[in-house]
Formats: sequence, C-alpha cells, structure tokens
Amino acid sequence: MTQPLLIRNIRPMAGDSVDILIENGRIKRIASAIEAPGVQVEDGCGAIAIPGLVEAHTHLDKTLWGMPWHRHEQGKTLGSMIANERSLRRDLDMDPARQSARHVAMTMAKGTTAIRSHVDIDTDHELAMFDGVVATRQRYLDVIDIEIVAFPQSGMMIRPGTEALMDTALANGADVVGGLDPCGIDRDPKGHLDAVFALAEKHGKPIDIHLHEPGEMGAFSLEMILERTESMAMQGRVTVSHAFCLGMPDQARVQGLMEWIARLDVSLATTAPPSRPVPSVAACRDLGIAICAGSDGIRDTWTPYGNGDMLERAMLVGLRNNFRADEEVGWALETCTTQGARVMGLDGYGLIEGGSADLVLIDGLGLSDIVALRPERRLVVSKGRIVARNGVVETEYQPA
Amino acid sequence: MTQPLLIRNIRPMAGDSVDILIENGRIKRIASAIEAPGVQVEDGCGAIAIPGLVEAHTHLDKTLWGMPWHRHEQGKTLGSMIANERSLRRDLDMDPARQSARHVAMTMAKGTTAIRSHVDIDTDHELAMFDGVVATRQRYLDVIDIEIVAFPQSGMMIRPGTEALMDTALANGADVVGGLDPCGIDRDPKGHLDAVFALAEKHGKPIDIHLHEPGEMGAFSLEMILERTESMAMQGRVTVSHAFCLGMPDQARVQGLMEWIARLDVSLATTAPPSRPVPSVAACRDLGIAICAGSDGIRDTWTPYGNGDMLERAMLVGLRNNFRADEEVGWALETCTTQGARVMGLDGYGLIEGGSADLVLIDGLGLSDIVALRPERRLVVSKGRIVARNGVVETEYQPA
Repeated sequence: MTQPLLIRNIRPMAGDSVDILIENGRIKRIASAIEAPGVQVEDGCGAIAIPGLVEAHTHLDKTLWGMPWHRHEQGKTLGSMIANERSLRRDLDMDPARQSARHVAMTMAKGTTAIRSHVDIDTDHELAMFDGVVATRQRYLDVIDIEIVAFPQSGMMIRPGTEALMDTALANGADVVGGLDPCGIDRDPKGHLDAVFALAEKHGKPIDIHLHEPGEMGAFSLEMILERTESMAMQGRVTVSHAFCLGMPDQARVQGLMEWIARLDVSLATTAPPSRPVPSVAACRDLGIAICAGSDGIRDTWTPYGNGDMLERAMLVGLRNNFRADEEVGWALETCTTQGARVMGLDGYGLIEGGSADLVLIDGLGLSDIVALRPERRLVVSKGRIVARNGVVETEYQPA
Repeated sequence: MTQPLLIRNIRPMAGDSVDILIENGRIKRIASAIEAPGVQVEDGCGAIAIPGLVEAHTHLDKTLWGMPWHRHEQGKTLGSMIANERSLRRDLDMDPARQSARHVAMTMAKGTTAIRSHVDIDTDHELAMFDGVVATRQRYLDVIDIEIVAFPQSGMMIRPGTEALMDTALANGADVVGGLDPCGIDRDPKGHLDAVFALAEKHGKPIDIHLHEPGEMGAFSLEMILERTESMAMQGRVTVSHAFCLGMPDQARVQGLMEWIARLDVSLATTAPPSRPVPSVAACRDLGIAICAGSDGIRDTWTPYGNGDMLERAMLVGLRNNFRADEEVGWALETCTTQGARVMGLDGYGLIEGGSADLVLIDGLGLSDIVALRPERRLVVSKGRIVARNGVVETEYQPA
C-alpha cells in the first residue's frame, strides 16, 4: 500500500494542465482542481508529464557504473568483445547484485520505470550474474518492473552445458528465453534455434533473440526464427533485438521480411546505433510491428558510452531514422514508452485513469523539445511512489 | 587587456594536477604551486581541463533558440527544406543579430571558444543574415573567434544575383567562400565551382563547400573540387563539409579520393549524422587529413535537435565511427578540438605555455568519461576571460 499523492498542474503529453490523484499505485483521477483533503501534494509547476520510460533492451549484469575507470582497449569483433568480457569478469570486481542495483538506480533517476534486461549465462560464471540481477529485482520490486532474459552471451551450441544452465534459470525466475546470432556466434542455426524454442515451449515463456548478423546471413537466421514462430504457434511472443539485417539496402527483400514479421506479430528491439544499419521505425509503424528501444550495455567492458537516459535514446532513435517533424519525433519517443510497454506486456501502462502510476515530469516546450534537449527529470513517480527528484534517486533507493 | 587569472588544481587532458597562470589572454605558465600574489584565483578542484571546444560547422543565422516552439512539418528533401526556410524567414521573427547572439552564448556556456559559421546569402534576403552575424561577431569579439562563410544556401547558378551578393559579403568581412552541392542543388557543377574558386582567388580567401551529394554524384563533384584546388594552387585552403560520398561502400573508390584529398591538404568537416554515410575519422587520421566537427544547424527550421554542446558532438562522432577504445574516443574529441583549430587556423591553440587562454573545466574520470557523459562545464575561459560558470554564461555575455 502506498500513500495517496496529488500532483497539481502538470501537462500530460504536453497537453493542457491538470491534476493527477494517485492511490494504491494507480492513477485514480485526472482532472482540473482535484480536491483531496489531507493528501500529500506535489506542485508540478506546469511540467510536461509522460508515462514512465521503458528500457526494453539493456544488460544489468554488465555495467561498470560507479567503479574506477576501465580503460577500453578491446577489439571490435563481437567474438573478441564477448571473450574479453568473460575474462574481465574475473579480473574486475563486478559484483552483479551491486552493479545491477547501481544501473537500476541510475536509470530510474532519469525516469525509467520498467526494464527488460538480458543477463549472461555461461559455463564459466554459470548463474552468478542471474542470481545477482534476481536479487536486485527483488530489492526494487515495489518500484520497478524488471524482466530477466536468460541470455547465452557466449553461445549455446559452441559451449555445452549452457543450455542446462538456461533451463535452470528459466525454472528459477527468468522471464524470457534469450538467444544470440545462430550463425555468426553459435555456428549452428538449426541447433541454436531448436534449443531456444524448445526452452520456450518447456517453460511457457516468450523469446528475445539478439540478432546482430548483417545482410543475407541475418535475413536467413531471421527466416528460421519466423519459421519456428509460426510452426510452434509463438505468434506475439517473440522479439528480435537489433535485427541489423532489416537495415540492408535491398528494400524489396526487407519488405518481404517485414510483412512476415507483422503477420506473426513478432516484435523488434532497437538501440539505434549510429554506426550500424537498423530497422526503420516508420516502416514498423506502417505495418503495425511493435518496435521498442533500449540502451544496450551502459559503460561496460564493451563500450564507454551510455547514461541510462531513455529520452536520450529517443533522440538517438530520431536521429538514426532522420525524424525531424514533431509527429516523427513523437514516434521516436513511443519506442521508449508505449512500444516498450507493448513488448513487455506492462499492465495498465499510460497516463489514464486506472493506469499504473508511473510518470515522469520534465520542463519543456513540447515533446520534441524534451527529446531534443533531455532536461533533468523534475520528478519520477513509479507505482505511485516518488522515486527521484531533480535527477537524484530518493535515499531509500540509493545503491551501495 | 584582461586581468591576470590563476587557476589552481586542474588536470590538462586528464593528466596530473597543475596550476595555470593566465596573463593578457595567453597562458603564461603551467606548473605546480604557482605563486602569483594579488592575482585573482579560481579553484579548479581537480577538474579535467581541455582546450576550448571548436564548433567548426554551424549556422548562426538559422537558429530559433529562445523563440516559441516551431512545429516541424517540413519535407525531407534538401530542396524542400531550403525553400521552407527561405519562406519562414519572412513569417517568423528571426532577427539574425539577436538569434546568432543567442546561439553564441548558448554554445559558449558549453565550452565553445571558436566557431566557423556558414551564413545564408540569397536574393530574397540579400545580406540581412550576414549583417546580423557580423554584428554578433563584433559584439563577442573579445571572447570568441567567429569565422563567417558566405554561403549560397539557395544556389548561385539557379539564382542569378547571388554571386554578386557573395562578392559584396567577401569584400565586407566574410572570411571564407562557401558553396553547395554543385550538381544536386545548383544543377551546374562547372558553373558553380568556377564561380566559387573565382571568388576565392579574387578575395584571397579559403573555401568551405557543403557537399551532401551521395555516392558517385558526390564523388564526381568532389573530383571537380580537387581538380580546381590543384590547378588554382589552393592546397591547404579548401574544406569539404559533410562529404557523405566518402561514406559510400566502395572502399577502393573512397581510398583513391582520400589519397587525393590528403595530397592536396584539403580538410573535411563532419557533423556525424547517424542517418547518413560519413567519411571515416580513422581513415582521415591514417592519411593525415584534417577532419573537424560541427553541430550543423541547431533547433532551426530544418531540425528540432541540437544544443551546441561540442562534447556531445564528440560522442556522436565516436558513436558514428564505432569508436570504443579510449584512444579512439580521444580521436573523436580531437575533431571537436585540435582538428577544428587546424581547419580554422587558430593562433596558439592548445593548453601550452604561450598559447591562447581558451580552456574548459569539466569534472570526470578521464577524456572518454567526459565524452560519454558530457557533464556541465564547471568553468569556461576564453581569451583569458571567464565567460561561463556551471553551464551559465556570465551576465555581460548574456544575449537578449
């Protein structure tokens, strides 16, 4: 049970000013001049209100946030970055519970109220990262939705024993079955995808597969994912992350794949990397395909970049898609809000009466303005609780 | 004459802590525990110091900064955006002196101490934008280097009369001859480039040409630029901005053009757009080609994005070039510092004794850290004067 809260003078989606009454973690009422004697009042000062930001693709177990600077000298191939990380996990003091809590608090301060996190499972570290993130999920249970994807980052077919560990994680609370580059990394697309879909069937859980493979190799793996989605009746329960292959120049080829994706209600997750081809957000919109966004890893052994700000991700989605018109920038913001909620299946998402009381207050001239400038978040409310003010998480949510 | 200034405890380029003594706009001494009785002291608190950021490609006459929100609904072709802007300049209250001053102050607050600005010259508005930016340059003469490029944004060959206006601007204080898409916009590559190079010869001024043209069309225009650079002995005095054609997939074709560019000491300017192909910063480095960076237009009729932060531009250059290693992120930062200074030919640039006292203090763990997170600038010093503290310009530099 949370205390009731009345927020006065805020502008949902940059519209007209209203008050919002929150009770028991839900939005009880949205109206002008709400009377609620004795209830705690926050003055929104005319700030824009948006629903809680959704971080739909990140890696809570990977961040070095709050640790001494790690000098980046790793190579650029996927394989070298994977091996580098697996080895550094032993050399650096990367306690997964502590680090994932730091990551959660940092992104919550910027307005994130739901996270889908891939979590590495491999035969070197077994379930250590999974257990750490589970502890963090438990710690922040009242204020943030965390979905855990059991993620075979180092491969399954090339690393026997991984599949059994994935099975254990899924039995012990992982929400989603992960996968990774069936050709490029695991060198056995049939073996990899059969295993992923079998785990999903066994545990009755959805799938989210990392697919970095470019061009026709990626398209081939994507076809194999879609074939299994169809034959195993997994419509609406499969996400493909990255899907760089859908950014290839052959528009006719891409269109065919996109129509197939739409027919099976498969979702996409993008991190909008400026240096890689990406699926078109506008094309997804045209076809009704859900496309959500994520930060990917934040300041980890792979990359120095990232700050957990999903408004900044919306800007990067906008820039990557050459979105300039206000309407288009709104679509970029949707990848970090409603589209993420759709992919994660969040209950009662949105600034509506009866909805979950997850909202972010930001000063600005409009939605394009806040995406372009990303001002500090004035107030973050999650499940009816105030979790951050002016960019700083409340004391009780501060990590070690 | 400026008052002497002693800044204690700062770390040039994230190195060891030193003091810096500034006199008459120059760095007089860099050493530990400098004694300078009676001199104003600033405590750097161990902040990182970098030389002033260089904004080497922007448009001071275009911004709507500080004006009511402009709803973006323009088309996406270059031609439509150019026509839209020319027409909106009449409908919106875009006073060029006021707006360029706002732009300068906004970017100065983030550590920019030198700007190369293209300024539109066309037959509708003649020299109105040029005159406005000249007024702003005069106003900020003591604290910021502003180079003005006379820029035929609406075309020269397709808009008779423009060339004569360019000629007048160059006679009246424009520093650089601009140009624009000789094929794509001006529909007469020979006419356009002959005119640009003739103006440069007549006024003894360098050249900076916008070249958005993609692929082989851009390569053809680039060849024509290089041919004239060679035949008119303009080596070291020509910049090609954008040069998207150098991001085309045909690596052998690109390599040939890049070697030619290097031989003629032609410079490149990039804005690192995530949605367009770009010249490779690493390849430029390998060949010794100067490549500087810029924001392009900031919150203007073309785009809602931009905030004048050249550390954010360094991040975008890093992301666009897939720079992850600390050394590589340093190259991205160089496009916004030393490379910009090289292209603009800035006198005494850099944190060295005898150098111009342009420096920015930022709290951080290292250079990659400040590029990744872009913290507020603690102090900005330009030509020996304190111009901004904690992200806010000093009162005397605030615009209307």
